[in-house]
Amino acid sequence: MTIITEYIERSTKGICDIHDITDDVRSHLHASGLTAGTVTVFVSGSTAGITTVEFEPGLKKDLPELFEKLAPQGITYHHDATWGDGNGFSHVRASLLGPSLTVPFADGHLMLGTWQQIVLIDFDNRPRSRKVVVQIMGE
Amino acid sequence: MTIITEYIERSTKGICDIHDITDDVRSHLHASGLTAGTVTVFVSGSTAGITTVEFEPGLKKDLPELFEKLAPQGITYHHDATWGDGNGFSHVRASLLGPSLTVPFADGHLMLGTWQQIVLIDFDNRPRSRKVVVQIMGE
Amino acid sequence: MTIITEYIERSTKGICDIHDITDDVRSHLHASGLTAGTVTVFVSGSTAGITTVEFEPGLKKDLPELFEKLAPQGITYHHDATWGDGNGFSHVRASLLGPSLTVPFADGHLMLGTWQQIVLIDFDNRPRSRKVVVQIMGE
Repeated sequence: MTIITEYIERSTKGICDIHDITDDVRSHLHASGLTAGTVTVFVSGSTAGITTVEFEPGLKKDLPELFEKLAPQGITYHHDATWGDGNGFSHVRASLLGPSLTVPFADGHLMLGTWQQIVLIDFDNRPRSRKVVVQIMGE
Repeated sequence: MTIITEYIERSTKGICDIHDITDDVRSHLHASGLTAGTVTVFVSGSTAGITTVEFEPGLKKDLPELFEKLAPQGITYHHDATWGDGNGFSHVRASLLGPSLTVPFADGHLMLGTWQQIVLIDFDNRPRSRKVVVQIMGE
Repeated sequence: MTIITEYIERSTKGICDIHDITDDVRSHLHASGLTAGTVTVFVSGSTAGITTVEFEPGLKKDLPELFEKLAPQGITYHHDATWGDGNGFSHVRASLLGPSLTVPFADGHLMLGTWQQIVLIDFDNRPRSRKVVVQIMGE
């Protein structure tokens, strides 16, 4: 059993900026030479999240519209009273989605569906430099 | 340390069709003979998700009503303009819930609560044949 | 490779009561002596969830307000017709958030952001005694 910890770095624009990181995860997996196990994809930070989506132009608009509906930018958040940084909506969206995704692999391949990509969603209200952890555990 | 990759296959009806797959996961765990570790339950595909719920008739209606409220069927999604398959609501619901669940086990038993079942939720707008990955890692 | 299963016990107040359990998870990790791997944090039970958040007083109010908006207490749930325990809203909130979180660690440290805490959220409608599983897998 082997554990490999790698990183993906991305410059993001915030306000629900969605980045397809599947190829990066796949590259790290192939470089590891491992054939079976799990990949944990985790974003360090409290205003971003990880999930899967069919990464196409329509859904890149639909997901931000969903989060705008669930936790709008234009309402008052207590967080903003604490820090004054105006990103209360970013924090609650990130907590709802979650920072972690575990994807199994077998025969050296991620077990994703054909139209299922791993995405980093940056919910913050400004550009950020993000570091995503890719930890591969397997044999 | 051992890694075992198994599958659960289910015919689903779509539109928030909820399937209790706990017994299937438990069967694979018992067959593995492993006593401690994690089970990763992952659905391949971008219009379904995995979570836990008390699987009883009331909540089998409440969860679909929640998702209908959060991401209704009757509104316009940009995804539908891309492909015309009319399941934009299915995609955003699936991304929000997530495709993956990790459940620890010890003494050979899944560490679920008494009234906590592992469920596959199919959000698509038509019947599907689903393949859920059950990857057991432990000793 | 080593697997260690530990527990965190908390008395909770319910109705979206949020507990920072980061220090407890960190203590178990340090006691394990392991340097690289994953920690799975899992709450047994169908009316609580696990996520990360910047644990500060503002967000401790914002998150409950978000869940009150997404799945209000004051509406009728079919679950309540089944059992009469009045916590239908707790169950659907818990299923939406999910009971599980996987956090990678390296060099003996959890790879959380500086302002990112691991939290247990109790959604139930009464005080509970909660048991959170902390399973550490690594080397």
